[in-house]
Amino acid sequence: MMTFQMLCFLFLFSVFILCDANFSVPYISVNTERLIEDLKILGQFSDGDYPGITRLLYSKEDKAARRYLIALFEKSGLSVSWDPVGNIFARWEGSDPRAPAVASGSHFDTLLNAGLYDGTLGVLGALEAVRSLKEVGFEPKKSIEIVAFTSEEVSRFGIGCLGSRYLVGSLTVEELLKLKDSDGVSFENARQSCGYIEKLRESMIAEDYYSAFVELHIEQYHILEDEGVPIGLVTDIAAPSLYTIEWKGPGGHAGSVPSYERQDPFLAASEFALNLEQLVLKDPKNTRATIGRVEVYPGSAGAIPRSVRLSLDIRDINEAARIKVKEQALEKAAAIARKRKVTMETLHNYSYPPAKMDPRIVEVIEDSCRAHNFSYLKLISRPFHDSLFMATKFPTGMIFIPCKEGKSHVPDEYASPEDILRGVEVLAETLARLSYQ
Amino acid sequence: MMTFQMLCFLFLFSVFILCDANFSVPYISVNTERLIEDLKILGQFSDGDYPGITRLLYSKEDKAARRYLIALFEKSGLSVSWDPVGNIFARWEGSDPRAPAVASGSHFDTLLNAGLYDGTLGVLGALEAVRSLKEVGFEPKKSIEIVAFTSEEVSRFGIGCLGSRYLVGSLTVEELLKLKDSDGVSFENARQSCGYIEKLRESMIAEDYYSAFVELHIEQYHILEDEGVPIGLVTDIAAPSLYTIEWKGPGGHAGSVPSYERQDPFLAASEFALNLEQLVLKDPKNTRATIGRVEVYPGSAGAIPRSVRLSLDIRDINEAARIKVKEQALEKAAAIARKRKVTMETLHNYSYPPAKMDPRIVEVIEDSCRAHNFSYLKLISRPFHDSLFMATKFPTGMIFIPCKEGKSHVPDEYASPEDILRGVEVLAETLARLSYQ
Repeated sequence: MMTFQMLCFLFLFSVFILCDANFSVPYISVNTERLIEDLKILGQFSDGDYPGITRLLYSKEDKAARRYLIALFEKSGLSVSWDPVGNIFARWEGSDPRAPAVASGSHFDTLLNAGLYDGTLGVLGALEAVRSLKEVGFEPKKSIEIVAFTSEEVSRFGIGCLGSRYLVGSLTVEELLKLKDSDGVSFENARQSCGYIEKLRESMIAEDYYSAFVELHIEQYHILEDEGVPIGLVTDIAAPSLYTIEWKGPGGHAGSVPSYERQDPFLAASEFALNLEQLVLKDPKNTRATIGRVEVYPGSAGAIPRSVRLSLDIRDINEAARIKVKEQALEKAAAIARKRKVTMETLHNYSYPPAKMDPRIVEVIEDSCRAHNFSYLKLISRPFHDSLFMATKFPTGMIFIPCKEGKSHVPDEYASPEDILRGVEVLAETLARLSYQ
Repeated sequence: MMTFQMLCFLFLFSVFILCDANFSVPYISVNTERLIEDLKILGQFSDGDYPGITRLLYSKEDKAARRYLIALFEKSGLSVSWDPVGNIFARWEGSDPRAPAVASGSHFDTLLNAGLYDGTLGVLGALEAVRSLKEVGFEPKKSIEIVAFTSEEVSRFGIGCLGSRYLVGSLTVEELLKLKDSDGVSFENARQSCGYIEKLRESMIAEDYYSAFVELHIEQYHILEDEGVPIGLVTDIAAPSLYTIEWKGPGGHAGSVPSYERQDPFLAASEFALNLEQLVLKDPKNTRATIGRVEVYPGSAGAIPRSVRLSLDIRDINEAARIKVKEQALEKAAAIARKRKVTMETLHNYSYPPAKMDPRIVEVIEDSCRAHNFSYLKLISRPFHDSLFMATKFPTGMIFIPCKEGKSHVPDEYASPEDILRGVEVLAETLARLSYQ
């Protein structure tokens, strides 16, 4: 026979269960100093000129950074594992260990001579969120798992989001085995020399392995700074197409060949660059086109160039618009090649579809902002992130914090301790809430 | 008392002495096969992708090439010496060893991924001329000295004709000690690591050390080929100015920064390149302007360039015209920098005055052509050579032979065995004649 007390208990218990979704974590105390110290130490694993940071996939600096991250994760009582490409997982087991985990993370490789925060903030920020939650006695229901993706930047193997793409199955072993860096070192040799000697196999991650993925990142632009808002909630991620264009001519001696006889691929590339600029200026709000890598061969002052190879990166949240710009650009490139009597070859490196963030995750982040009285802004991420690929398999959201003058991929990339504090607080709150959803 | 016989003898002796100037060498038998074999072996001392040849000053390939050349010279009975920068001298002592020697030679370094004949033909061609003269029993009066210049190309230290400039005193020890290659290795360290440990001192060559200098070289253009003429007689050498221009901007993320906010130094460089082309097309017959080296930094597909550094090479036989083009080009470069809000820095690497070849030497080469029934053409050398600097101190002349399609500084640079044969025959004849002048 059920007593009134028992009924009351059941009622209260049910309310507790139903309230899981509104779970709030009081007294989160993020230790920004500790986090920034970790970021700075990680920044020292660099092959670049200080303060610029260069940490390429599977380099000796990357290997050292991996050891450092694993030590940090283990020191915080997380159980660490990795997959064959070196994605690192640090798990905080929840009270319901069989439930799909809540994941958070980002990458820790860099472009050449880049900054301290891009990617690394999402890795060490997730760790700091976990440490803060642990310190206030929070106990997760769903496990919380930090993911340190093996490589997001294109710097070494010319392919972005290598780790996250592998994880979600958008990059096959066959494709990985074809990759070579600019020195001709194969992905497979580089991987093994970094200590990942386990045989490469396709990723086996289950559709429901994660119930959510949340990535904390610097905005890499200056909307938040301009608006004076500390938190950005990403709704969409614009996605890139990358092409490599190469023009070739006969070269020749700088003193001999008169201008009217030259078939100079650098002049073709120059004409293309200026045309591309004009093309993009037609819809500059949405489309981005960048020539970032330019290789001029043989590169002697006394020789007319024989080849110019450049990267063409086009981005948009509207895939059709992106395709249109690409087509117009490549048509123009071919016309310039014909006019200047140089040959042209085009390689399509990759194209990814834009992604939408999961409305439920965005809502939880919003709730977390409100719980901490932080104003926020919904915005589009024009840079892409590991979240672009995580979103193809798992409900995904992104938290942006401002970075100074919007600068990124440069040595003076900077996020203030105050903004970092707020970002990690929102992340911790979000992870805690998602852990009980 | 002088007999009639004695008078006759004295008369004939005087005729012989006076005829020295018209000395002719019968039966020269140039061994083209042996020469081409030597050229091919020398071409194997290369750090480049076959068939391209890369042999940079003081590299291990250069060191090996030096050993090979010295062995060849010694095998032919020449006495070999060198100076502190590694100019190599191989002397065939004449019957009047105190008379100023007749010199012939060229360089044996290369640009990146260059050809088999540029420079090396002048070194090994001079050796073959000496070998041929020895084989027909010729005995020089003035000594004949082969000079293998230490470096003519700008490839390693950004400075042309390093060896010949040092030799004639147009490059001081102070200037040499400032040179660094693109990896930051100093000239002095590179020099010593190549085995030249003797203390650097200014060149001590006397004004009358050489009575003549003659350089055999491929034309590096196609006038001789077009006209079907086997020998070119150089009357003037056009001379270069070299500048380095660098534009810098703030860089930024390829996805974030819209076109209208970018301060992209690569677009500045592109605009400059196209403007330069137009500028030179105003007087394309005489002026040459080339952007051969382009370095884009950081060079990542995902990052807007932060700096672009390029080489600007301008050449003319008219120094005033060259200066005018340079001024207009640099003015335009600065205007583009202002418009695109990038900074600009200009470095003046060098400027040399054009040179005239010595009429007496040209005449001897003409006589030598006639003696062999080879047609010839007088022409301007638009590429510059060690002769540009040798001419500042010694009476100098140059012999050109055709090269296929005028191509040079490329792996498929080619001179036919027949043209090489004729070139070396004229050189041998010329050296022999000059030895008795």
